[in-house]
Amino acid sequence: MAAEACGQEGQVKLLGSSQSPAVLRVRIALALKGIDYEFIEEDLQNKSPLLLQSNPVHKKIPVLLHNGNSVCESMIIVQYIDDAWDTKAPNLMPKDPYARAIARFWAAFVDDKIVPSIRRVFTGQGEEQQKAVEESVANLFSLEEALRTSSKAYFGGDEIGLVDIALGSMSTWIKVLQKLTDIVLIDPEKMPLLSTWMERFLEADGMKEVMPDPAKLLEFASAMRARFTQTPAAN
Amino acid sequence: MAAEACGQEGQVKLLGSSQSPAVLRVRIALALKGIDYEFIEEDLQNKSPLLLQSNPVHKKIPVLLHNGNSVCESMIIVQYIDDAWDTKAPNLMPKDPYARAIARFWAAFVDDKIVPSIRRVFTGQGEEQQKAVEESVANLFSLEEALRTSSKAYFGGDEIGLVDIALGSMSTWIKVLQKLTDIVLIDPEKMPLLSTWMERFLEADGMKEVMPDPAKLLEFASAMRARFTQTPAAN
Repeated sequence: MAAEACGQEGQVKLLGSSQSPAVLRVRIALALKGIDYEFIEEDLQNKSPLLLQSNPVHKKIPVLLHNGNSVCESMIIVQYIDDAWDTKAPNLMPKDPYARAIARFWAAFVDDKIVPSIRRVFTGQGEEQQKAVEESVANLFSLEEALRTSSKAYFGGDEIGLVDIALGSMSTWIKVLQKLTDIVLIDPEKMPLLSTWMERFLEADGMKEVMPDPAKLLEFASAMRARFTQTPAAN
Repeated sequence: MAAEACGQEGQVKLLGSSQSPAVLRVRIALALKGIDYEFIEEDLQNKSPLLLQSNPVHKKIPVLLHNGNSVCESMIIVQYIDDAWDTKAPNLMPKDPYARAIARFWAAFVDDKIVPSIRRVFTGQGEEQQKAVEESVANLFSLEEALRTSSKAYFGGDEIGLVDIALGSMSTWIKVLQKLTDIVLIDPEKMPLLSTWMERFLEADGMKEVMPDPAKLLEFASAMRARFTQTPAAN
């Protein structure tokens, strides 16, 4: 990736943080499309004036800067990348209206149901955590069923698409979380399709270059979880 | 609207409820595009097998059935309508990739920030309600600023688009809520653009036919609020 990327794509910068699955979604989309960009690591304890100015409403990463225009919110950025570079393969969204609606439905399901329930497994303890595990497993099972219905390699069909990016960005986090807590969220016997999908996603072209290093993420997640579990759980 | 609409649009049915702003979003989109459909009123205390089968994941209205395909989640349905009938004016989404991202950003802001904060004004009491009012006003002020920046009649530009539908569907509810609680959420002096926008939206072609009757909605909302405020607030 060029330090100051300004080729035929125009100037592309990404404000993010290495451990954030939301930022990873954008990195995956940019990698799949083969777009050069400059990655700017944000210190979330001391947000840069550029971040605050580029995302004044939410003040959150990721933010994509494309020729000076700022685009915020991870899944909105992924769709923007697909729209702005629509002649570059692969298409991250299908062209058929109904297939597009289905992709948006499951991408929203990942954001609204999967992410919050898995986050509570990570931050929770005892009964609260057990409840979050049950919710997470039920939610993930809905995705197992979606894969069973479509009988395709990816949620997007034969290639990685919007839903694969939404969920796939959490793959390493899910593995690290399972290791850290000894909790199985995706049991290969109960969710064989989702389990195979995850391995396929992680092995896909270009994914190794953007995915966080599992050992480093384990260290990071372990320190983070210790902070959550050492203080009394909020109700 | 034909009782069994099956013209050149194909067969279109909408499972909904007359008082729901989420369902209203879909009705506004269908009205703007001039699409005939059959409206099926759901009893939410006793959901129909058709609803449960069409939206097995969330079991919620609205659901659009188009030639037997079911599309769920109000803003996903609105985008589907724009995609599926893309040759019918008006376009609910702009064609420019950056303008699309901005529309998606504010539509998500309405769903993630405006709707929950206004709902808490409706259901809350005392200090909890006061906090919800402050949040709602701050959120609405972000939209006032968005209108100021764009200097257009609508969020979508010169015509009603995605964000107008997302927020506009709540217009009558906001007015009824203000009357019911004596709380001013959109003060014409502090938010002149948003206030004018709302009147313009309500007066737009075809809107009167789909908007709920304010007197009936006031009665419905009043009975509903009584249920929330007569029982101790949950923490």
